[in-house]
Amino acid sequence: MREKGVAGLRAELVAVGTELLLGQIVDTHSAYLSRFLSDIGIDVFYHTAVGDNQARLQDVIRAAHSRSDLVIFTGGLGPTEDDLTKEAVSAVLGLDLVEHPPSVKALEELFIERGLDVPASNYKQALVFPQGTVFPNPNGTAPGVAVTHDGTTFVLLPGPPVELYPMVENEVRPFLEALLPTKEVLLSHVLRFYGIGESHLVKKVEPLIQHQSNPTIAPLAKEGEVTLRLTAKAADHKQAWNLIQPVKAEIVKQVGHYLYGVNDDTLEVVAIRALSEKRQTVALAESCTGGLIARMLTAIPGASNVFRGGFVSYSDDAKQKWLHVSSEVLASAGAISEAAARSMAEGAMAQLDADWGVSVTGVAGPDPAEGKPVGLVFLGIAAKEGKTTVHRLSLRGSREKIQIRAAKHALFILQERLRGTFRER
Amino acid sequence: MREKGVAGLRAELVAVGTELLLGQIVDTHSAYLSRFLSDIGIDVFYHTAVGDNQARLQDVIRAAHSRSDLVIFTGGLGPTEDDLTKEAVSAVLGLDLVEHPPSVKALEELFIERGLDVPASNYKQALVFPQGTVFPNPNGTAPGVAVTHDGTTFVLLPGPPVELYPMVENEVRPFLEALLPTKEVLLSHVLRFYGIGESHLVKKVEPLIQHQSNPTIAPLAKEGEVTLRLTAKAADHKQAWNLIQPVKAEIVKQVGHYLYGVNDDTLEVVAIRALSEKRQTVALAESCTGGLIARMLTAIPGASNVFRGGFVSYSDDAKQKWLHVSSEVLASAGAISEAAARSMAEGAMAQLDADWGVSVTGVAGPDPAEGKPVGLVFLGIAAKEGKTTVHRLSLRGSREKIQIRAAKHALFILQERLRGTFRER
Repeated sequence: MREKGVAGLRAELVAVGTELLLGQIVDTHSAYLSRFLSDIGIDVFYHTAVGDNQARLQDVIRAAHSRSDLVIFTGGLGPTEDDLTKEAVSAVLGLDLVEHPPSVKALEELFIERGLDVPASNYKQALVFPQGTVFPNPNGTAPGVAVTHDGTTFVLLPGPPVELYPMVENEVRPFLEALLPTKEVLLSHVLRFYGIGESHLVKKVEPLIQHQSNPTIAPLAKEGEVTLRLTAKAADHKQAWNLIQPVKAEIVKQVGHYLYGVNDDTLEVVAIRALSEKRQTVALAESCTGGLIARMLTAIPGASNVFRGGFVSYSDDAKQKWLHVSSEVLASAGAISEAAARSMAEGAMAQLDADWGVSVTGVAGPDPAEGKPVGLVFLGIAAKEGKTTVHRLSLRGSREKIQIRAAKHALFILQERLRGTFRER
Repeated sequence: MREKGVAGLRAELVAVGTELLLGQIVDTHSAYLSRFLSDIGIDVFYHTAVGDNQARLQDVIRAAHSRSDLVIFTGGLGPTEDDLTKEAVSAVLGLDLVEHPPSVKALEELFIERGLDVPASNYKQALVFPQGTVFPNPNGTAPGVAVTHDGTTFVLLPGPPVELYPMVENEVRPFLEALLPTKEVLLSHVLRFYGIGESHLVKKVEPLIQHQSNPTIAPLAKEGEVTLRLTAKAADHKQAWNLIQPVKAEIVKQVGHYLYGVNDDTLEVVAIRALSEKRQTVALAESCTGGLIARMLTAIPGASNVFRGGFVSYSDDAKQKWLHVSSEVLASAGAISEAAARSMAEGAMAQLDADWGVSVTGVAGPDPAEGKPVGLVFLGIAAKEGKTTVHRLSLRGSREKIQIRAAKHALFILQERLRGTFRER
């Protein structure tokens, strides 16, 4: 039975494109739009993917029309004969499409800028529902369109991420906020933990989780990290934050030692921020992570202010020659050892005249090395003004997983030492 | 209208879990299963994601039942009250679930192995459809189940990837192959190109694409790479390959210069393979790619045989000190220059006593550097037994895109030079 508007907007998402059904691309738009809608307080009940097929697309539109207040489509707004989303919505709702002069103008200007004529096929992208809304697309040739019919609002958005994301943030957000029946807001605050398992963390905050209502507390584990998402509902942003704050404080009291950041923070962002604040620099010596930490740091704009450089020392002579790991250490303890990790971290720091040196040496697998088991990893953290600490990890999982966890663990300890929250475990 | 079994099996996929609708996880299973089904000749017409809600899950099952021959569910087979997939299918089809002694035994053994009692809630995971099929799950507590009712086959699989993937390959594949109406096979062969745009490549093989029927030819562009997927249908594997081969030969004649691999090959795999075949080694000096190439190479098991190591030279003194880039070069041409790229590649090769040296220096953005524009990149490829070549790129897009394209381009030229297919463009 249809129960429109009973308790907030009921939304669903439709991704259009045969490439989805062939598995050639993964539908990441639906997860993105779900998070976006959840953040503004709209519940999503279905995701559907359907191919570039007029009959099946119409079936999907009819089903969505019968059960949802809001249907958001991505894809199928291109210039080709396979791009059918607008045409299918028009056919199901019996609404005409007419040419939209500002969109024609934008289209023509875009092609002129590129020194090209407008292909005849592109003009259909400027067709819109006259009774609806048009979302301009500064990043492509297809404007977004929206139309409300018989109690359901249909929003049609272009598929390319570079066009979709800005349109959602700049155009669709205010459009949907105006649709919301009440002004209640939903505020989410994510706490990010490292170095503690999900079940262990949940146990520590169990009383809070059992008595949760507003805010709700949702744990999630991913790639060695655990997050707790606190979500509060209130009349405005400030009241929602006032609900979240005491619960967050209680959680920090229990497991704050493992907390490294909030919301969109990542370990690399937190480490770079801590280095920037102290105007200090770091150098790397990576063996089994093979450049992964360097890659994580340099993916962040502005890394060059705090990252001096790194070695990927995949051979013993590289370790000896540049990092001054002594031949005695290599011969007795081996390249995968506490002593080697210590020398590597100190060597990288000295060679690059950095304030901190971080090293990783271990066995990522799939085969053991030096007679040492897969997953054994030593991390070294050297400090110009402090002692060198070495950390022994026994990691499990695939080669990739071991590399990622070793890299994250190194960044976790680095940011702890930078922020003065480090203590031996 | 329902047209079951008319032209092969009509399949759809249903992913179950509220975390999908909240956007907390991306549904990658549907893309994986779509590729899997496409490879065995089964067409997928819909993907649906639905939450852990009995009523809505039943609605989805009824819709799927009415329009598809095969419905594959992932998720919702866990031990909690929120895990509802089996219960919902049972309710819609009116089929009882009964305890399956071998699954009970497997469950108990798994917990005993971990030294734990079986929680009462887990026993529901051993319930199956007595008229159906059970897929054992050596990697978890939920067996997969399948049941055919009124012309539609329902396959219910566990959500965790570590349980799902082996079950699909080992159990579901033979089960579905036995369902297929004919023994016709579908063979796909993917040709992988670099250094040529999609529209340019499509234009060059246009006559072939226009006359395609068997094999079909499908182009796809992704992260600077373009692929052509040739898919042939025939009575057996060998006949399908005989259809593909002459078309492939014709494509190679037109655009073989840009071809670097087939099927699952990646640029890093091809580069490592070419190095291994020649028993040669490579060293890296990365500036604007910040360790990405090292990361790509060392993600491949066995990289240590051909990868000597690398420098991430993010500061000028690192370039001078380790790579012997002269202060004259840095002062006159700058660190982002043809001369610097040349010195870096030669320096890395010499320092690490490798057969090849690869360097990257450029402006990844978001801001210009040394007065040079974002996207300007120089690649150096030095060879112990050959000349050093330097390649100037003007890349567009985000910081990440520029880094990825620069890294891929460097690997593309390296493998060309290794395989002797390199020519100046």
